[in-house]
Amino acid sequence: MSSTDPSRYYEDHDIGETFEVGSHAVTKAEILEFAEQYDPQPFHVDEAAAAGTVFGGLVASGWHTAAVCMRLLGTGPLAETASVAALGVDELRWHEPVRPGDELSLRVETVEKHPESPIPGVGQVDVDVTGFDQDGETVITWTLLGLVERRE
Amino acid sequence: MSSTDPSRYYEDHDIGETFEVGSHAVTKAEILEFAEQYDPQPFHVDEAAAAGTVFGGLVASGWHTAAVCMRLLGTGPLAETASVAALGVDELRWHEPVRPGDELSLRVETVEKHPESPIPGVGQVDVDVTGFDQDGETVITWTLLGLVERRE
Repeated sequence: MSSTDPSRYYEDHDIGETFEVGSHAVTKAEILEFAEQYDPQPFHVDEAAAAGTVFGGLVASGWHTAAVCMRLLGTGPLAETASVAALGVDELRWHEPVRPGDELSLRVETVEKHPESPIPGVGQVDVDVTGFDQDGETVITWTLLGLVERRE
Repeated sequence: MSSTDPSRYYEDHDIGETFEVGSHAVTKAEILEFAEQYDPQPFHVDEAAAAGTVFGGLVASGWHTAAVCMRLLGTGPLAETASVAALGVDELRWHEPVRPGDELSLRVETVEKHPESPIPGVGQVDVDVTGFDQDGETVITWTLLGLVERRE
């Protein structure tokens, strides 16, 4: 189901509900392509220079890691949600660097709901998003403040 | 100066210091390219479907707006900073949608400093990032928790 034909409205989201979504393997080509366009710091675009940084090698831009997780979110619970927009993100943290070949998965938990939002007929559903790698290490976390249509 | 040959260490950043950076015009092609890869919700990838949403037309993924601002940050104060990484982002908010043709600029203000961080010899410098469009409307805000080498 796309978000133009959703099955899960505001009322259908329960606090404590958890979804697992995965996975996407992050390639070196994708890391370089994103970073060259949006975040060309040496540790994201230059393998030789990256070796001399705290990371000891090429790592994905943190914004790229977030974008990859957003893609996973879109193929997961969000695809069936009557989502109309998002207000923002709280407490985004990059816990571990993402390196070429790392395979990311997501856990998404509904943590808070508010029936009203700035948009009439739309409620707010907050979800905690955790991205982890193939070893189960948490690489990124954030809380997404989502806006979801009410059924009535 | 690149961040491998920086001029501005932890000690060189003053609370209240402000930089203006700009600008980048966001094209429809760039909006579609980012969204098809990372955030293919109808209002980001399908002009006809977008017309029927709360946005009334195609808008950039919020993660794309953040990435564009990151690019501006990289060409601005960050390019001269001895930046080693970032811990994360607090209170990211999407205030207004970004549409094809919008031209984004940044204001960056140093708001907090801590001499210690998880990395020895590295301090934390927090900056408030505000992205605004060609009409001066604020479209995105966030606080970046940056890690910056100490001089000594």
